[in-house]
Amino acid sequence: MGFALGIDIGGTFTKLVAMGEDRRVLGESRLPTEAAAGPAALVDRAAAACRQLCTASGLDASSARAVGVGIAGLVNSTTGVLVAAPNLAGWERFAVADAFAAAFGCPAAVENDANAFALGEATLGAGRGCDPVALITLGTGVGGGLVAGGRIVHGRHGYAGEFGHMALTVDQGPRCACGARGCVEAYLRSSHVVALALELSANAADSPSPTLARALAAGEATARTVGEAAREGDPVALAVFRQLGRYLGVAIANIISAFNPQVVIAGGGVALAGEVLLTVARSTALARVLPPLAADVSILPAALGDQGGVLGAGLLALAHEPKSPGAG
Amino acid sequence: MGFALGIDIGGTFTKLVAMGEDRRVLGESRLPTEAAAGPAALVDRAAAACRQLCTASGLDASSARAVGVGIAGLVNSTTGVLVAAPNLAGWERFAVADAFAAAFGCPAAVENDANAFALGEATLGAGRGCDPVALITLGTGVGGGLVAGGRIVHGRHGYAGEFGHMALTVDQGPRCACGARGCVEAYLRSSHVVALALELSANAADSPSPTLARALAAGEATARTVGEAAREGDPVALAVFRQLGRYLGVAIANIISAFNPQVVIAGGGVALAGEVLLTVARSTALARVLPPLAADVSILPAALGDQGGVLGAGLLALAHEPKSPGAG
Repeated sequence: MGFALGIDIGGTFTKLVAMGEDRRVLGESRLPTEAAAGPAALVDRAAAACRQLCTASGLDASSARAVGVGIAGLVNSTTGVLVAAPNLAGWERFAVADAFAAAFGCPAAVENDANAFALGEATLGAGRGCDPVALITLGTGVGGGLVAGGRIVHGRHGYAGEFGHMALTVDQGPRCACGARGCVEAYLRSSHVVALALELSANAADSPSPTLARALAAGEATARTVGEAAREGDPVALAVFRQLGRYLGVAIANIISAFNPQVVIAGGGVALAGEVLLTVARSTALARVLPPLAADVSILPAALGDQGGVLGAGLLALAHEPKSPGAG
Repeated sequence: MGFALGIDIGGTFTKLVAMGEDRRVLGESRLPTEAAAGPAALVDRAAAACRQLCTASGLDASSARAVGVGIAGLVNSTTGVLVAAPNLAGWERFAVADAFAAAFGCPAAVENDANAFALGEATLGAGRGCDPVALITLGTGVGGGLVAGGRIVHGRHGYAGEFGHMALTVDQGPRCACGARGCVEAYLRSSHVVALALELSANAADSPSPTLARALAAGEATARTVGEAAREGDPVALAVFRQLGRYLGVAIANIISAFNPQVVIAGGGVALAGEVLLTVARSTALARVLPPLAADVSILPAALGDQGGVLGAGLLALAHEPKSPGAG
């Protein structure tokens, strides 16, 4: 049986998987991205890690059918070049597809990491059996992807699904990393979860639990800390996710109105932080959209955890059809 | 040479076209919709008008290859049934495809009217040669459609492209006909153009021109009146379209972030009302979206005027492939 390799390059970690033609995982691994050392160094280390992974799994690394790469940034799907990468400083203009094809000696397919995540969830996760599938990822940044007919929807150059930079307001709201105000990402990125917890704990009638109060005061709180506090019933943390749930709900409603998907999946650390976030988002979204679209859609948490992206990268490689010479 | 028929059913008028296989218009006509008389009466009158149109154009009506129908409402693309139609009261659950196929004795293809409009503009209008193409229509209501690879993007059941019901705010803004607050339609429908002109003429430092002031005072102003005033330099009318241009710009930015289209086309009466609207919308949208997406996209007025929908319906008929028995 043949196999392919999947690689998910994030700002901090790079994950690897070897996937059989039956889509079963034959082996997996991870390494630090060490973004500051530049992309060429990562390609070399990833190639070595893949050889090691193959050996450990009884596979011949040189016989991989293709390598699929998901990477945190905007990838031009025509050229395979990274054109913007806020979480991989200095990596812009990295020719991802060419570099991996050369290092691995096999065809390479490249996508934005959220597109790969969407393909993973659509094929093996919460979107299995549904069509079309939309995914929104909530983490350090906010991204998204769309899968229709089992394939990633690209738009003109592979940038479709940038749900993080859709606006939730015309001229207000927090400043986004992109420079605009009121983007979905400005509300739902992990740093804003913490900022809102600080704001609400200063103003709220209810006080945060001692654990959350300590973490906030020490500047050590993360979206995960706030999520854990929400699960333990902390009133401030619950208020944070209730408020953000309304923003997420309007964002999801806009995705539904645009695409009429059968399922919208929320993934990433913030999405998993508290069930209250998705509960409020679901009721907000379904109340907003036209009834025939509301009747069509499910709103679900991601099912593959933090493996969705690397599994999607493996699927990308399995689906890769090399272009015939001269084809566009 | 074979031909097909296109029909565009609006709340007030129904337009007809006979289109040759080379996509040239062989004849056209229109009749009042008379929505209150119900859909069956319209089907009969449209069939008679098509026979008359064919005779006048030297065509044999019984040899039409197919009939394409665009209709103002949500159409389930699997069943061909109208599921919601705010501008055709009482027409819900009308089996559009079945009724037209029976009356015309040929296959029938049905779409939401904005989807048909998008196909018309993508194929013969401002989107010619571009892929993908997004259209937003601004009139009594606000609709939209998407064309990728020369085909209408349906989503799950044909409801994709409902840009009028995407939100521009989480919890504020004018009430939309759908019941929610802050929908794109609530800002950009023609009645809100007039409402905003009234509001700004009451508050503004500048006064409206005597013509516009009279029309507003008499309750006779329409989006067209305000548009004409803007073209003549009326300061209140210009302020109206400048303000609405920012809303339209954010709506278009959201469409670009979602789809990465090569072109976004604005059509309908309000879009044509004043060049200032589209100028402000264009600069607002391009300043908001991520630079690689801004570099990819043009924002253009519709090129086919009020014929985009009926031409799209004709194209729909020409592209119609009858399902083989047993196919889904």
